[in-house]
Amino acid sequence: MMIDKMAMVDTNCIGENTLIKSFAVINKEVIIGSNVIIHPHVTIEAGVVIGNNVEIFPGAYIGKPPKGAGAVARKIEYEQKVKIGDNCVIGPNAIIYSDVIIGCNTLIGDNASIREQVIIGDFCIVSRSVTINYNTSIGNRTKIMDMTHITGNCQIGDDVFISVLVATTNDRAIGQSGYAEEKVIGPNIGNGVAIGASANILPGVSIGEGSVVAASAVVSKDVLPRKMVAGNPARVIKSLDGGGEI
Amino acid sequence: MMIDKMAMVDTNCIGENTLIKSFAVINKEVIIGSNVIIHPHVTIEAGVVIGNNVEIFPGAYIGKPPKGAGAVARKIEYEQKVKIGDNCVIGPNAIIYSDVIIGCNTLIGDNASIREQVIIGDFCIVSRSVTINYNTSIGNRTKIMDMTHITGNCQIGDDVFISVLVATTNDRAIGQSGYAEEKVIGPNIGNGVAIGASANILPGVSIGEGSVVAASAVVSKDVLPRKMVAGNPARVIKSLDGGGEI
Amino acid sequence: MMIDKMAMVDTNCIGENTLIKSFAVINKEVIIGSNVIIHPHVTIEAGVVIGNNVEIFPGAYIGKPPKGAGAVARKIEYEQKVKIGDNCVIGPNAIIYSDVIIGCNTLIGDNASIREQVIIGDFCIVSRSVTINYNTSIGNRTKIMDMTHITGNCQIGDDVFISVLVATTNDRAIGQSGYAEEKVIGPNIGNGVAIGASANILPGVSIGEGSVVAASAVVSKDVLPRKMVAGNPARVIKSLDGGGEI
Repeated sequence: MMIDKMAMVDTNCIGENTLIKSFAVINKEVIIGSNVIIHPHVTIEAGVVIGNNVEIFPGAYIGKPPKGAGAVARKIEYEQKVKIGDNCVIGPNAIIYSDVIIGCNTLIGDNASIREQVIIGDFCIVSRSVTINYNTSIGNRTKIMDMTHITGNCQIGDDVFISVLVATTNDRAIGQSGYAEEKVIGPNIGNGVAIGASANILPGVSIGEGSVVAASAVVSKDVLPRKMVAGNPARVIKSLDGGGEI
Repeated sequence: MMIDKMAMVDTNCIGENTLIKSFAVINKEVIIGSNVIIHPHVTIEAGVVIGNNVEIFPGAYIGKPPKGAGAVARKIEYEQKVKIGDNCVIGPNAIIYSDVIIGCNTLIGDNASIREQVIIGDFCIVSRSVTINYNTSIGNRTKIMDMTHITGNCQIGDDVFISVLVATTNDRAIGQSGYAEEKVIGPNIGNGVAIGASANILPGVSIGEGSVVAASAVVSKDVLPRKMVAGNPARVIKSLDGGGEI
Repeated sequence: MMIDKMAMVDTNCIGENTLIKSFAVINKEVIIGSNVIIHPHVTIEAGVVIGNNVEIFPGAYIGKPPKGAGAVARKIEYEQKVKIGDNCVIGPNAIIYSDVIIGCNTLIGDNASIREQVIIGDFCIVSRSVTINYNTSIGNRTKIMDMTHITGNCQIGDDVFISVLVATTNDRAIGQSGYAEEKVIGPNIGNGVAIGASANILPGVSIGEGSVVAASAVVSKDVLPRKMVAGNPARVIKSLDGGGEI
């Protein structure tokens, strides 16, 4: 264990061979595993548990309490805990709120931001500047590319690939009806789905297992499994299970 | 007032019960209200005035002087001042340039960046990774969601909702004619307008009060009040004032 | 030369009149020119060379070693060096990986992130929250606006203008075929090309010199020089060389 003399460390729960660099701020009630590297200017709040062999790059902020100003409609509930599994990498300036669980071997990219009540599986990539909203779950081996937004109340399966600049939303009323939890429903994206760049997945849409959404498609209604859809609004252009029919 | 011994604070104008944490940098000529929390690694430049009950999360940078390198065409003018109203929240790693005024109870999200000569009203949300360009005004109770870009020379009214990944621009020549202030005109978005995810609002377009722009619409000409528009190019698909005609 | 007493500086190769502010971290084997300003909370890794008259704003991180977690398919190769030319400006919280060369008079915007094996020319703008992937080259006087993503294995010429929220990608299989270097080909964008907001340039597409891509166009096949294309899929709507034919 090597803590730079200019780091502010308020916990004793730090594993072997862990390195904490200058100007990092580690609050009390933080647990850090072995062989972890924490770079300069990282801030970690109380309640965060970090596994072994994790690397956290400069400026990352982990355990942010959700806090709205007067303008936030939704009531915020959360537990003060974060769990980051073994072998994860947290990119520079990434922000992880409180009440987030991240599996093992997952990469959170530079400037990404993940809100409360989110679960992310193993071997995932959440790439640069991706934002993930509250109360969303993401399976294992799923990759979400740069600048894509994952909405609140959304479910994403295993082995999903979502390309860059993809929009997902959860409110058909486009913010015109206030916040009613039961009407705010994000997409449900099945296992093995692939979504092309700049696609737009509208609120409440289900995309069935193994389907492919073409680049720039606007998906306004449910997609059955193993179909390829394209266009605005998206229509089935191909079946992917060999049957030939669409 | 509690200033961590590892903070660098060059001002005496700090209100009661304000907390400044480790490795924050507060320059001279900064005025900070009461009950403010300034987290680690925040930097605040001279000329910034912060109201009461404001919370500024780690890594935020307030009062950035605008500075182009050799490649910037537009002449930059600004005053060295920022005003942040009572009860605002400034997210982690957010960047606010000099010459910005923000009302009360407004939330500036994680990684957002707001350039000079911008005015934002009360009870607004400027969400995560939103960028706002120079010389733009935003009314009260307006919400701008993640990764949306608000262009320069743009006016946005009260009670507007702009969803995620929306583009606005101000130059019909797409950068091919150099910078001529009189030809660079952003959209004018009326009170109560709602704009869906991934929409694209072209330069100089006016969108009338209460109108709705569907997700992924490309708005290339003016929209009258209380119309719903959709498609590329966007056309009126519904009147919203009960008249039935479009 | 003025180094704040709270900065951590491990190099002696610093030019005249250079200013390094509080809580900056400069590692060994860093070379810094004259008249440079390094703001608080900047981190610079070994192997970085910074020219004269450069300004680096708070929270920037230069020389990041590329590091994937278990989920990254592509083998990462890089050299531990960065070169930033004279008169550049590096925005707050910008991230520049190792093995990047940036010319003179270039602006890297707030929260931008530039990966390894990238070369950027002189007098360029890489604006706010732009992400650039590995093994990509960008010419001189080229401007890439906010939130645009430049993919890996991509070539961009001189005097190019790419507007906001533009997607580029390099994998027609949308991540479904694993990573095969020879099948992963980004666009080739010629000199003087202009690309409108929210356009989507599909993998491997070439856009000829002087062509214009309209806002929200989806470019799925090659564009000849001096054509204007629009729509999804993009079609030629105008010739720009006076011939009148399309």
